Parts: sequence; C-alpha cells; structure tokens
Amino acid sequence: MITYLRHPLPLTAVTIDDRFWAPRRELVRTRTLRHQEDQMRRPGQQFDALTLTWRPGDPDEPHIFWESDVAKWIEAASYCLATTDDPELDQAVDQAIELLAGAQQDDGYLNAYFTVVKPGQRFTDLRDAHELYCAGHLIEAGVAHFEATGKTRLLDIVRRYADLIDTVFSADGPCAGGYCGHQEIELALVKLYRVTGEPRYLDLSRRLIDWRGQRPFYFEIEMERRGTPGYFGTTLPRRPEELRRFREYNQSHQPAADQAEAVGHSVRALYMYSAMTDLAGEYDDDRLLQAVRRLWTNLTTKKLYVTGGVGSVPGIEGFGPEYHLPDAHGYAETCASIGLVQWAQRLSNLTGQAHYVDVLERALYNGVLSGASADGTHYFYGNPLASDGTVARQEWFGCACCPPNLARLISELGRYIYAQGPDEAVINLYVAGTARFTLAGGEVTLRQDTGYPQDGRLTVTVTPADDEAEFALAVRVPGWSRALAVAVNGEPVHEPVLRDGYLTLSRRWRAGDQVEIDLGMEVRRTWAHPAVASAAGRLALERGPVVFCLEGVDHDCAVHNLALAGDVPVHAVPDERTGVVTLHADATAADDSVEDLYSSRPPGRRSVALTAVPYFSWANRGPSDMTVWIRHEE
Amino acid sequence: MITYLRHPLPLTAVTIDDRFWAPRRELVRTRTLRHQEDQMRRPGQQFDALTLTWRPGDPDEPHIFWESDVAKWIEAASYCLATTDDPELDQAVDQAIELLAGAQQDDGYLNAYFTVVKPGQRFTDLRDAHELYCAGHLIEAGVAHFEATGKTRLLDIVRRYADLIDTVFSADGPCAGGYCGHQEIELALVKLYRVTGEPRYLDLSRRLIDWRGQRPFYFEIEMERRGTPGYFGTTLPRRPEELRRFREYNQSHQPAADQAEAVGHSVRALYMYSAMTDLAGEYDDDRLLQAVRRLWTNLTTKKLYVTGGVGSVPGIEGFGPEYHLPDAHGYAETCASIGLVQWAQRLSNLTGQAHYVDVLERALYNGVLSGASADGTHYFYGNPLASDGTVARQEWFGCACCPPNLARLISELGRYIYAQGPDEAVINLYVAGTARFTLAGGEVTLRQDTGYPQDGRLTVTVTPADDEAEFALAVRVPGWSRALAVAVNGEPVHEPVLRDGYLTLSRRWRAGDQVEIDLGMEVRRTWAHPAVASAAGRLALERGPVVFCLEGVDHDCAVHNLALAGDVPVHAVPDERTGVVTLHADATAADDSVEDLYSSRPPGRRSVALTAVPYFSWANRGPSDMTVWIRHEE
Repeated sequence: MITYLRHPLPLTAVTIDDRFWAPRRELVRTRTLRHQEDQMRRPGQQFDALTLTWRPGDPDEPHIFWESDVAKWIEAASYCLATTDDPELDQAVDQAIELLAGAQQDDGYLNAYFTVVKPGQRFTDLRDAHELYCAGHLIEAGVAHFEATGKTRLLDIVRRYADLIDTVFSADGPCAGGYCGHQEIELALVKLYRVTGEPRYLDLSRRLIDWRGQRPFYFEIEMERRGTPGYFGTTLPRRPEELRRFREYNQSHQPAADQAEAVGHSVRALYMYSAMTDLAGEYDDDRLLQAVRRLWTNLTTKKLYVTGGVGSVPGIEGFGPEYHLPDAHGYAETCASIGLVQWAQRLSNLTGQAHYVDVLERALYNGVLSGASADGTHYFYGNPLASDGTVARQEWFGCACCPPNLARLISELGRYIYAQGPDEAVINLYVAGTARFTLAGGEVTLRQDTGYPQDGRLTVTVTPADDEAEFALAVRVPGWSRALAVAVNGEPVHEPVLRDGYLTLSRRWRAGDQVEIDLGMEVRRTWAHPAVASAAGRLALERGPVVFCLEGVDHDCAVHNLALAGDVPVHAVPDERTGVVTLHADATAADDSVEDLYSSRPPGRRSVALTAVPYFSWANRGPSDMTVWIRHEE
Repeated sequence: MITYLRHPLPLTAVTIDDRFWAPRRELVRTRTLRHQEDQMRRPGQQFDALTLTWRPGDPDEPHIFWESDVAKWIEAASYCLATTDDPELDQAVDQAIELLAGAQQDDGYLNAYFTVVKPGQRFTDLRDAHELYCAGHLIEAGVAHFEATGKTRLLDIVRRYADLIDTVFSADGPCAGGYCGHQEIELALVKLYRVTGEPRYLDLSRRLIDWRGQRPFYFEIEMERRGTPGYFGTTLPRRPEELRRFREYNQSHQPAADQAEAVGHSVRALYMYSAMTDLAGEYDDDRLLQAVRRLWTNLTTKKLYVTGGVGSVPGIEGFGPEYHLPDAHGYAETCASIGLVQWAQRLSNLTGQAHYVDVLERALYNGVLSGASADGTHYFYGNPLASDGTVARQEWFGCACCPPNLARLISELGRYIYAQGPDEAVINLYVAGTARFTLAGGEVTLRQDTGYPQDGRLTVTVTPADDEAEFALAVRVPGWSRALAVAVNGEPVHEPVLRDGYLTLSRRWRAGDQVEIDLGMEVRRTWAHPAVASAAGRLALERGPVVFCLEGVDHDCAVHNLALAGDVPVHAVPDERTGVVTLHADATAADDSVEDLYSSRPPGRRSVALTAVPYFSWANRGPSDMTVWIRHEE
C-alpha cells in the first residue's frame, strides 16, 4: 500500500510573513507578474495570438509555446490571489481567461498555433509541437484559478479541452498510443482529477504514461503517417547511437516504468517523473514507485549540481553522462530545478522521507532563486556555476518558459512549506508564518518564527482550535544539521527522535505550546565526487541551505585565482536588514602582476580577504566573474 | 631599411632524413594526400564541381570553398614532388590542374560556384563568399607547382586569373576599394610577384591590404549595392558593440596598419598578418612593421595557448578577450596554428630574431601536429587542451580546410628549417638532413645530425663546395634552453655568443668542420599567467619543444584527478624506435571509490604513477579523457 502518506496544505491555509521570503513573494506579485504581463501584451505576442486574427503572411506568427506562457502566468497570479487581495491582478487574470475562452473552438480545442497557422493539423506533430504541453499548463492554470478564487470559468474551459483530448487519446481514438513530446499534461491531469473527482482524467494521465516508450515508437509512426519532419524539421537519425539519444531526448526510448537513468531533456524528464510519482500513489503502483526511486537515486547521486541545478548539457537542455557537471559551460535550466522541486515534494509526501526535501531545499534556495534578478524582472534560463563575467540575466526570451515558471513556484511556496497526514502536522521548510492543519484530532494552527536561512533557530507555536489536540508534530531536520538542539516549552529534549529525517513529537498539544529547534548553522566546506571534473581540487562553501559563490566585484582579482586553505575559519556576517549572509575568510590569490603568459615559476601568492555571497544573489551588481567551486589549498 | 634579412631555402636545396619528421612526411605523401584525393574525387565533390556540369536543382551544389581544397592539395603535393620522385602523384596533380584549366573562363575567371551556381554575381559578395580566398590558394598552388616541377601550366592559369582580379580591383575598376572577407590572396600575390617578378601583383596585394578597414566600410557598401545579405544570410547587427565585433571578425574594423589587438577569426587574421609582414619587407614600410610587431606581442603574450594554439572562441573560430584560453571548451583551429607558423617565419626572416621561431616551434610540434592522427587520415579542426573523452579526430569535414593545410605545411617543412642571408647560413629548426646554401662566399652544404626532439644534441657538419668558405653559421638556441654547450671540431666554445637568439659562429669554414651543440633537455614545469582561468592551480609539462598531456588510457582514474607535487622528479623515457618520449612521475589521485556526490570531507588521495605523452600524439589510442594542465600540489 503506497498511497500518499501526506498532502500539501491548500494555499489559503498558509500565511507567510518571513523576512527572507515575504519580500520576494511581494516582488513576484507587484513586479514580476506585471512585467511578464507587459511582455505578453506587446503587439503580436501572446495575448494578440489568442484573438486568432493572425493570417498567413502576417508578421508575428503565433508561437507553439505561447498558451503555456499565458497559463503559467495565470497560475502564478492565481496563487497570489489565493492569499492576497489584488483586484487589479484579479482583473488582468480574468481578461486573459476571456481571451482563452474566445480562442477555444466549439469542440473544446484550444491552441492558437494549430487554429490559425496549421489548421487541420491538430495532434499530428505530438513529438515537436508542444500541443499537449500547452494543454497541460492550461489545465494547471484552470485548477489553480479555481482553487484560489473559487471561479470556475477557466476550469470549465480546460475541462472541455481535457474531455476532447480524452476522446482523441482514447484506446480507440485517432491518437491511440500517442503522447506528447514534452511531458506536462500527465501531472496536470492528476491535478484536474483531484479537483474534479473525474477519474477519466486520471486514466488519461495513466494512458499517456503507459503508452510512452512502447514499441513501435509512436513518434515514428506519427512521422511516417504525416510524411514530413516535425515542427523543428528534425528527421530521424540513422546511426543507432544517435537514434537512441534522439528517443531519450523526450524519454520515449523505453517504457516509463522501466527507466533507470535520468536522460534527455531535463524539464520533460522531471515533469514526467512527477506524474509517475503521482500515479504510483493514486494507483498503488509499486513498479512505478520503484522506477521513480531508481531515477531519483541516479539523478541525485550522479547528475545534480551542488546548487540543485540539473541538466548539464546546453545542446539538449538536458542530462549528460554521470558526473558530467561542468561549471561555466553547463546549463542547469531554471525550469529544471523547478521541476526537481515539484518532483521532490511528491516523493516526500508519498513516502514521508525528509531526504527528498533536502534536495528540494537545495534547489529552491540556490538553482531556482538564482533564476531571477533582485529586481524581479530579469531572468536566467541557464544557471552556470562559474562565469567569466559575460553572463547576465535577460529581460525576456523567445521561448519564455522560465520567468513565469519561477513566478508560479514562489507564489505557490505555501504548498511546499507544510504537509499533513491524518494525524501529523509536518513542517518541511523553515519559513516564518502560520499554517492551519485539519487533522483527525481537530483543527490546529502552527506558527513558525525563524530567521532562516540567516540562522538555524525555529520556534513553533501550537494553537489547536479546540484548546487541545493530540497529533504528531514532524519537523524536518536537514541532512546537513550536525548540532540539533530541541526544547519543548523550554524543556530540552535529550536525544530527540528522528523518524525518516523528521524530528517527531507526538503528544497532546495545548494552546501556546512552543517547540524550539536549533539546527546549528555552521559554514560547511563541501567537496564533490572526484569524478566531477569542474570541482577537482576545489570546494564549495555552504551554510544551511545556501550555497555560496565568489564574485569578482568583491575582489581585486579574478575569482579563479582565489584559494582557501582547509583549516582557515570562515565567518558568516548577516545583513540585519535583508537577512542575507555573506562569508568572509583569509585567503590567497595568485599574483597577476606578472608579464609573461607562460613562466617556469609558479605565480607568487598574496593574502586577500575572501568574500562569498549566496549563489542566488549573484550577477546583481554588474558584470563580474563568478565561481561556486573555490580552489582548495592544502 | 627593413628589407628581409633572410630568405628560406628552396625546397629542392633541402633533404630531410630525420627520425621524427621523415616518417611523418612520408605518411603525408603516401597516405594523407591519397586519402584527401579520394575524398575530393567522390561523386559530387570537389573534382566533379570543376567540370562545371552542375545545374540548379541537382544535388551536391558546389561549395564556395572547394577550389581552396583542391589548391592546397596541389600545393602540398607539389612540395612532395620537389624532393621525391612520385609519378603517380605527379600525374594526379596534372589531372587536377587540367580540371582547373577546364573550369577557367575565357577571361581568366576560375570559380565553379560563381560560374554554375551564381552566374553573373562574381565579386558581389566579397565578405562571405570566399572568392578571392579561393583565388589566393590557387595562386599559391600555381607558384608551388612551378617551383617544385618547373611546369608552368598552373602558374599560367593563375596568372591569367590574377590579371583579371588586378583589373577588377584596380583603382578605377568595378571593385575599387574592395577586399576579401577571408584574407589569403594578399600573401599569395606576394609569392606570385616573387616568382614572376611582375610588380602589379605586389601592388595589388598592397592595395587589398591598404583598402581594408577604410571608411566607409566596403562590405557595407557592397551589401547595400547588392541589396541582399551575404552567402550566410548574415545581416548587419544594429547594436554598436555587435557591429564592432562583426567588423572585427574579418579584421576590417580599422586599417590594417592601425591594428594593435589580435581579434576576430584567427585564420583570416594570421594570413593577413603574414601578408602585412611580407609587404613591410617589400616596401620598407616601418608603419606596417610596427603594426605586425604590436599584433605579435598582443597575440603571444595574451592569446596564445601553451600548445601554440590560437583562437580560443569556437563560435567565431577566433580570438577571445585577453587571457581567455579555456581548455576543454576552447578552439585552437589547426589552420590557425599553421597560420601562426607561417607568420612567425616571415617575422623571423624579416628581423633576424629567434624568439619568433620559438613560437613557430611551439605551434609546429604541438598545436599543428596534433591536427592529424598517427595514421595520417583523421583530423582535428579544433585542438582543445582538455577532453572528457568524447573528442575524436574525424575523417573529413564539410569545410575541409585543415587537412590539406596540414599536409602542405609538413611537405613544406624544408623551408622552415633553414634560412639564408647574404653571408650567413641559419638553422632555425633541429631536423636531421642536409641543406645547400648559396652564400656570398660560395655554395655550402650543412648536414644536421640530431635526435631532436628526443634529445637536445645537434651535430652540424660543414661542407663548402670550394673546400673553404667564410660565413656566419647561425644556429637558433631555443628560449627554453638553460644549459647550452657548444664545441667546434671538438673544442668547447666557452661563453658562446648569442645574437638575437642565435648562436653565431663566424669563421672561415673548412670541409668536415663540425659544430656540436647541446641545448640540455630537461623536463620543464610551466605555469600560465594567473589570468588564465583554465590553468589556475595547474602546471604543464614541457620538454624541449614538446608540450605533454595526460591521457586517461594511461591511468586508472580521470586525468583531472591527478596531481603532481612541485618537487617530485619527472623522468623522460624515450621510445628508441620512434624517438617519442613519455614522462613519468609519482603523483597522487583522488580516491573516486566514494559513493556520495557531495561530501563534507575532501576526497582521500592515493599514490599513482603519472604518465604524460606528447600533446601531438593524443587521441590515437581510442576514446580517453585528456588534459594538458595538470593539478599542482604544493
């Protein structure tokens, strides 16, 4: 029996007044989403495309991805509206929804590209044209908007579209055996099933996963049927090795349940792994669970950047060979780290194990957050671990998947902080604010007070609705914590019990009961596996969930020339206003005042003050070189 | 007065029976040139294109570069024919020349692409279409074939073509002010002038150099005149910074004589610098000389790989910013190192300074030689300084500039070994064999006996034709030599005189006089300037002119994990059959048997036997990771 052990809280049950997160969330609502709306409102862009007025020969041909941009933006805005009154945003979302309503065809179909650019060619280019991918994001948006606002307008729209897709992709439908080249709809359909209770959506998700990778390969049948290459003009490679990689790109190389190695395009992979995890829980499918566990182990022990970045090969935006984690020339797409966060949460809620959340937190505080600038309006698509100073965030992208994806994750943060089981209230992330749990023993409100990630102390105040309630309070203890101290109502808990990585306190709680937890927050030196070439002879600095980096702007030399000895103390200095910590240490730098390009003597070294800043904050102070991996002097 | 101080010997005056070079030269003649001919004879390829039978709609549209491939192959073959009787090759060359003769138009024009693919559009796309570039290579081939064989067939063909170009590019011709987007013809025209004595060719070369970079920019005039983008569909960038780089790509951003930084596409740049050096000598033009000196200093002190590779940015096949010399993700095109060899020779002959030949030798023994496989039939386009094991030489390229370029340099080696002034015989490279000099004091034959680069000892035997001759024997002493020992007829020369880097022995030489030189051949540890990120904390091993590298195939761990202490002895072990030396030392390697991807402890280290092989020999033993820069343990 492997049904979900825990579930996230609804966003409406969570408040966040955290010094670290609240301003970031406010920035998303007040600037990022406005900025993204402005981008999509530009003439000839997303919003115009939905009017279906484009005609062949016109400029600004609608892009195959554009519904997904609008949908992710609506989803992110909905999460904001769930907890914040924002009539202007509410109205903007309603307008966008009406555009979608206007673009929907009589039979429920909703895709501007295939309506005006390639009419009559629906569902004929599943491999490349992202049709079901866009549908998936629309479905997620419809679910989010309904849950946040109670309005059914978009939910009704996407149900009609999902019903059409269910027919087309039924076992005897025209696309029987088919599935999308960019997974996304599979996890969206599970959400739609959960909010509507309609099992057809769950079954459709299951079919799409089960059909994937069966032989003969659907994308090859489709191609032959169509007689032309796909949207990107790609023809089938001839050499067996290339053909294998071609199929791996969208994880259609073998049945999902048989897969054991994270390969191909990372975002496609991670969205699929999330859906597989959902389906493993919904169907009590141990084979699917074993598959996602295998994939998780492969990804996290062989293919994960220390920043929580994944997908190290730019050319395919995807996974490389094991331990292939180049720093300056890697990739680590923002969306892939977001996908990892989503998958990790599902695994943790399904299994009750905290180590999944350790990875979630690593990605969230580093490879995800680095995706946006401090001003909330510039974005990284890739998040390299080193830069020669030429890398900068951009305002927008032709394929703008990352910006709204980041916005929706940060707006949805409340769902990641807590989880609840029948008789347990779970704290996964340390974020100041409140959460209302509905447990077997009654309704309970928890309040977190914490300066995390600046410090590792947390106070949890329990307020049962009925004055008392018996339940287990499970607080995740990060794997990096080496000095856990716990007190309940001021009484130290000696040898606190950890269950699956959670400090678990089962008792009859009374209003005002307080749990104090101190994780200890030391600066950690971290080394990568020797097979990781970019980290050879180097170390990373971490503190709590935050990975640090060196930026040239803080030093009078190139950061690759800085070296830190193994035994030198590293001091953490917090900025009391922002809570952001910088690290300081005595280090050495190579003397770069020499003339010769090549010399028979090693460069002299001089003492320098090393400053490390959180990786998430890099590239916010003008062009500057950067490195996460720091040379290690013995 | 800056006329050329020295000139190369004609190839017919030089023999090479060197253990290192003779087999490589034989391989070029017996395999590489045959293999390249086979490639070009394939249906629809270079040779077919010259029949001018291609028609629109046919497959295998002639490529804009193809005459240059044929020409470089003829040039390389001619150099072989200069010293070796090879009737089969001679006949193949004559056949190719007849193809060219057949493709030449009545007015002398000779370019298949503009004859059959774009008739009527000659000289309208100078920036992108490589028309004069191909003409330049044809001219070089014509000169080489005449000098090697005495046959005038190809020389006559290229003279007619050059005459046409001279008219078209005359001061009042239709292309007045124009020049080629890929420099090459400028240096070729100097060669044509020298062999024919016709000053119009020299003047044309001068015009093409002088017009380059004048405002308004010719390529922009041309584009406006034509009304379409160039061959590659490239339109002019709008942003000033991008426009500047766009012009720099082909070094047309400013007048050649004003240039001070090596920028843009490296091969274009280096061919131009060679022509500028030739013209500085021919015209006694100090301004041009100052320009090439500036460019040389910039290139060799800021932009030169330790292997003699140049041009570190793959996207432009060209120069990056100063000290931008990435290892695995660099470029270092084989042709660019060849261009550097050609330029360095001109500078050394013009100025009489040996340090230019130090760079020539660095490029020749490393970044050039690495371009071809041990079997002579596989090639590197780029020559990276590190590889994860996925880099392998290829049999051929769509744009196959490097393979025949390498063949012609190795076939032409005789011209690089020696130089002569009016009363001096110069040895620039240590290569066993003989050379016949025609000096003011009479004809003199020198014989070199040496095991270089395996050892640093050289015996020069002097044989004047008239029994005695007074002249200066100048033997280059490489900059890396730290233990020079010299003896004449067995008598040690104490405190030997070095003039501009040459050991200079002026005397009346008698037949049988012998000079013995020992450069000392220690293994050297070499460090790069601290601004070179890829070399931070690492060292290279060199011995004589040879740069070494580590290959995975020699070790039981990834080469990036090997570390060499500063004081550990490194032993050189020669293969007595091939003369190739490998280096051996006690080193350490990170223990890669750990499980964790990230760990709070540095990886343990174990002792390993380090083996370094010459960089030129890498990637000849199957897929293997490789690094030139070796981690340095204090």
